[in-house]
Amino acid sequence: MAFNTTATIASFGGKLLKLTHKSSSTNTSMGLNLYLPPQSSSSKVPVLFYLSGLTCTGDNCSEKGFFQHGASKHGIAVVYPDTSPRGLNIQGEDDAYDFGSGAGFYVDATKDPWSKGYNMYTYITEELPKALFESFKELDESRVGITGHSMGGHGALTLFLKNPGKYKSCSAFAPISNPINAPWGQKAFKGYFGEDQQEKWKEHDATELVKKWSGPLELLIDVGTGDNFYKQKQLLPENFVAAAKEAGNDRGINLRFQSDYDHSYYFMASFADEHVEWHAKRLNA
Amino acid sequence: MAFNTTATIASFGGKLLKLTHKSSSTNTSMGLNLYLPPQSSSSKVPVLFYLSGLTCTGDNCSEKGFFQHGASKHGIAVVYPDTSPRGLNIQGEDDAYDFGSGAGFYVDATKDPWSKGYNMYTYITEELPKALFESFKELDESRVGITGHSMGGHGALTLFLKNPGKYKSCSAFAPISNPINAPWGQKAFKGYFGEDQQEKWKEHDATELVKKWSGPLELLIDVGTGDNFYKQKQLLPENFVAAAKEAGNDRGINLRFQSDYDHSYYFMASFADEHVEWHAKRLNA
Repeated sequence: MAFNTTATIASFGGKLLKLTHKSSSTNTSMGLNLYLPPQSSSSKVPVLFYLSGLTCTGDNCSEKGFFQHGASKHGIAVVYPDTSPRGLNIQGEDDAYDFGSGAGFYVDATKDPWSKGYNMYTYITEELPKALFESFKELDESRVGITGHSMGGHGALTLFLKNPGKYKSCSAFAPISNPINAPWGQKAFKGYFGEDQQEKWKEHDATELVKKWSGPLELLIDVGTGDNFYKQKQLLPENFVAAAKEAGNDRGINLRFQSDYDHSYYFMASFADEHVEWHAKRLNA
Repeated sequence: MAFNTTATIASFGGKLLKLTHKSSSTNTSMGLNLYLPPQSSSSKVPVLFYLSGLTCTGDNCSEKGFFQHGASKHGIAVVYPDTSPRGLNIQGEDDAYDFGSGAGFYVDATKDPWSKGYNMYTYITEELPKALFESFKELDESRVGITGHSMGGHGALTLFLKNPGKYKSCSAFAPISNPINAPWGQKAFKGYFGEDQQEKWKEHDATELVKKWSGPLELLIDVGTGDNFYKQKQLLPENFVAAAKEAGNDRGINLRFQSDYDHSYYFMASFADEHVEWHAKRLNA
């Protein structure tokens, strides 16, 4: 077994496993949570990857996100990975909430010293699913969806758009939708890729990626109108939809502005059921 | 307005208000959360008091308990008070997790120095509801229920049993059901009342109180079989049911042992919908 199970917690009729494993992508031990719904004891179940936002680990959403409620109903496993390597001892890695620890941005860093472990793109798209499908035979690797919040919404959109066919469903909560034009994204890409690597930046920008998408595109995206980061133009979901429209790919995008909701887990919990149902329709089809 | 509203947060179609007010019972400022369901904008709604357990404030359950999910569906307001006064500057008040700050035990202390503010019984049963009903006309004071977790389950059971007619519905999660025979309860009652005040202790012991109850008694109580505090005999729900049975009052008590569930919010979140429905049936009847 590639994973150590440090706790098994009953939740909504299923169980939440607290796991750790050695990652060759990040060169660290990585923690994550895996929710196995009750249906997984008798049959293979689809898997929804939930990518967290800045500062979070896989714990926050498993406690406050309410995804287990819908996942139990629809028979879907949920994977809650961490948001970066931890403890690489890179100078300054813990100095800011929006860069380094807790802020891996789901990219493979190319710039020293971050390239020695900040490889969350490879970790999430390759290493972690491979390890999970080897260790947990109840997970159906042919039915995988992806979602996420804020930085994790950026992760969900970009990983989905960069890997046609890998994910059968995608949704996002308050995603950073055009990071190359937003302060958070610019800081991260400058640090992980370098200031002069504009082509590399675009490879991890959902708004750039959607321009090149071919084929049908179905996405559910929720953004709260009371979200201060939306107001500060960190998220820019309109840019994403405009780019999709220009490319003729916007018809299946359901961008919903939810009145008064903020950027917190209160927002996500309120719409978690609807997102899980969105994925269930596609993963259980 | 007796309350300051420090934040208004959209949640499950309604709004969660973060409130503070001056309390004459505790001689401090007290914080709480009030969830107003969407129905409260057009009609009076019943009110469910949720009493938290050791170490908690009103925040924990509003983030992790998911009572808002059911409360929104059934049109019930939820009050999440704090668990003790804070900042009375009593020597030792912050020294232990199970006594003093965060551990008010829903009693009025009679022993110095705690009697100068550790009056959570009067605060929860009288001062706070009076202030809420004066300030929030959408709350229906004729339809009030009470629930709680662990120390708060003890609070829910004892406040219900000591005040016939005040609460129309009662439930509890992993309640400390016989505190005079459990380490947590003995420590608290010794500190707040004194070691020699056995009659006073019994006045705040659900197992003692249920012996004297007359009339119908309907209670929903959930306890996890994986709850370490249950195993350590801090909760003793069997004593409560045995006492009720001896008094001929056990027929309406639904004590459920939930396989594998622990003492955490993961447990409560899993059964919050069912508890809210239990209250809704009685408060909306």
